[in-house]
Amino acid sequence: MSLPATALTRSYTHELPHLTGERVLLQGWVHALRKLGGVSFLILRDGWGTAQIIVENEAQLAPLQEGNLMPESVISIEGEVRATPQAPGGVEIGDPTITVLTPIAEPLPVVISKREINAALPTLLDHAVVANRHPARRALFRLGAGVMAAFRSHLNERGFTEIQTPKLVASATESGANVFGVDYFGRRAYLAQSPQFYKQVMVGVFERVFEVGPVFRAEPHDTIRHINEYVSLDVEFGFIEDHFTVMSLLRDILAGIFNHLQEQYAPEVALTTATLPHVPATIPYIHFSEAQELIFARHGVDVRGEPDLSPQDERWLGEWARQEYGSDFLFVTGYPMQKRPFYTHPDPARPTYSNSFDLLFRGIELVTGGQRLHRYDDYLEALARAGQSPEPFAAYLEAFRYGMPPHGGFAIGMERLLMQLTGAPNVRLTTLFPRDLTRLTP
Amino acid sequence: MSLPATALTRSYTHELPHLTGERVLLQGWVHALRKLGGVSFLILRDGWGTAQIIVENEAQLAPLQEGNLMPESVISIEGEVRATPQAPGGVEIGDPTITVLTPIAEPLPVVISKREINAALPTLLDHAVVANRHPARRALFRLGAGVMAAFRSHLNERGFTEIQTPKLVASATESGANVFGVDYFGRRAYLAQSPQFYKQVMVGVFERVFEVGPVFRAEPHDTIRHINEYVSLDVEFGFIEDHFTVMSLLRDILAGIFNHLQEQYAPEVALTTATLPHVPATIPYIHFSEAQELIFARHGVDVRGEPDLSPQDERWLGEWARQEYGSDFLFVTGYPMQKRPFYTHPDPARPTYSNSFDLLFRGIELVTGGQRLHRYDDYLEALARAGQSPEPFAAYLEAFRYGMPPHGGFAIGMERLLMQLTGAPNVRLTTLFPRDLTRLTP
Repeated sequence: MSLPATALTRSYTHELPHLTGERVLLQGWVHALRKLGGVSFLILRDGWGTAQIIVENEAQLAPLQEGNLMPESVISIEGEVRATPQAPGGVEIGDPTITVLTPIAEPLPVVISKREINAALPTLLDHAVVANRHPARRALFRLGAGVMAAFRSHLNERGFTEIQTPKLVASATESGANVFGVDYFGRRAYLAQSPQFYKQVMVGVFERVFEVGPVFRAEPHDTIRHINEYVSLDVEFGFIEDHFTVMSLLRDILAGIFNHLQEQYAPEVALTTATLPHVPATIPYIHFSEAQELIFARHGVDVRGEPDLSPQDERWLGEWARQEYGSDFLFVTGYPMQKRPFYTHPDPARPTYSNSFDLLFRGIELVTGGQRLHRYDDYLEALARAGQSPEPFAAYLEAFRYGMPPHGGFAIGMERLLMQLTGAPNVRLTTLFPRDLTRLTP
Repeated sequence: MSLPATALTRSYTHELPHLTGERVLLQGWVHALRKLGGVSFLILRDGWGTAQIIVENEAQLAPLQEGNLMPESVISIEGEVRATPQAPGGVEIGDPTITVLTPIAEPLPVVISKREINAALPTLLDHAVVANRHPARRALFRLGAGVMAAFRSHLNERGFTEIQTPKLVASATESGANVFGVDYFGRRAYLAQSPQFYKQVMVGVFERVFEVGPVFRAEPHDTIRHINEYVSLDVEFGFIEDHFTVMSLLRDILAGIFNHLQEQYAPEVALTTATLPHVPATIPYIHFSEAQELIFARHGVDVRGEPDLSPQDERWLGEWARQEYGSDFLFVTGYPMQKRPFYTHPDPARPTYSNSFDLLFRGIELVTGGQRLHRYDDYLEALARAGQSPEPFAAYLEAFRYGMPPHGGFAIGMERLLMQLTGAPNVRLTTLFPRDLTRLTP
């Protein structure tokens, strides 16, 4: 079907406040149709917003009524833009001529014209193809686009180069267990659990690199904060002092991201009821061992000696940072070496602890990062200590064999950022099309 | 190892022309060391360029000579910036103090300090970790970053939203054959051959979307222009007239990309000897059937009736476009439906041909695109005609079941764009870490 012949070029819903008095052509979806006495209000949704069309003459609705058309029918409307203070956005369209482009005669599997989607999580996810058209949900994913754009823009300004590294790899990066296997022309390949090895290698080329891309974790967990494929915002750079250089860059990038959302995405923030955090000039930090002491002192739970923090520990530390520093963010530094991957740089003063960090955002780990080993001999030693042969890592190790500076980096989980930003109860709600233990579609 | 204590903050090689007369701190890699009589020329490479350091006093080289250090050792240099017209960039560093950060005592597996890498393709690819440090190679990949940045920037300006869609999928998209299988928690999953289904679905959400990400093709071909994982620049948008609307947008995006490279990447263009094309205001186009007639008329080879163009056909058509229109680009439109995927929109006037196109760039297919079906019933019919059950496509089909406008899009192959831009003889040379039938590392 081709578009209707008209003398008008298309206008968009967000332009209407500037077009009062003019006759315009709009195109989009029938978002809702409400009758109030003799008057009908048709809400048209296009890619950027909605517009209210007032239909005072029943005959004007005929193109929709003839086929008993349902919401999500695709239509064109010509009409007059009228300033109407009580209408959303201060304008509405009067005297409409409606043309149907794609008629829909079936009711939707989930209703998307109410303020919230009234459906159980599995239903919403089963019908994400339609549910993601809901204005609040698409605003959420537009915030995601804003996060990616701001991330790149602030890194480009600092001399970072964007890379796209292979996702089909010959060996596991983070640990051998949680990796998806792929049949690769009769051989075994794996899906990259992170771009870790490649981003380090690329520090040898560009010094400062970043990547935005999918990562794959075959973790058999069913939690509210894990999915098996997510978007990772990765950074790596050379000539650092230690992990504090990395934390300082991370702080600035986060400030850049949230400022960008505040300045450019006010309508999306409002629609999603996201609460933008203030990023302190210096984000508070606490050493891993002190964090465990603090939890013991404040909550009477003795986690000292544990090699990692539990979700409950992270929540407690998040509360403490909020009370003590008024901060939504807290760095926990110096995680024990035993739980960190082999490329982690030890703390020179206390070698059982590492020059690594997690960043908690509202009590959940959002970012992991740190300083990496950079000397070839240190890698050989670390692999030997871990009982691993260097052979599968030969290509990666070549970077260190032929000269790497002190370097480090971090990885931000995009969907988790959106989860914490909007207070969503489950990361599946902030993922376009989530993948988990049981879900591979849509 | 921590960085040396110094009163100076670091300068970068590309800043040196603005710092003549000053004492600076540089950090980077020993790119080369050449002795000329009593004087040595040390070339330092940092992430952005190189600097020539003149060493007139042999003792100043002691830190490098003590360990017989080799190229790619990582060093710091303090020295004085001197205007020297005969030096590259018009400046050099004199009176240097050298500190070694990471000593390298082994010779490199490939020499990267000459104008070209003198190594066979497999050797170069085996050692891509080091070879990609070569100034011309890293300039190439920085051009790639520029292509991605310009692509996004021009689409953002036109109201497009960036998406990141799942790469782990439940069914093949393009054809059942050339897809990688994944063990997904005991089930069978596949790697997405393209974001095709998801980008179409997302037209229902945002109307205009783009994605930059990896795609996976299990094609068992060993050719100079195929790899099994590549970066795809994908676009999809709604409310089009037909495939010509899509071709018009593509033309503007390509013009935007090449203008951006010309304006912002002159040094990289020079280092790679890339030849930037002129993008005509209207790119010439020829219908598939006319293209076959033309080949018969010009070359006496009768390919009429073939359902697709061969690489030789594409080269001939590319030559013709250059001779006839002075254009590096040629659209071939209307490919036969039988070779296009089931979602392809037929030409309403000649339904055995499609509303699709390929864009040839210097005689090689660079972009594929077209108009898609948008009515649910048309999808059911197309699948039935292809002998396929709609069941595996249920989630995808939901988009059309609940209202989609006429829409279309295209996908640009990033590595192939770089190949044609630089005249590289093999797409593996313009891929950061290529994946092919036999190669999974580095």
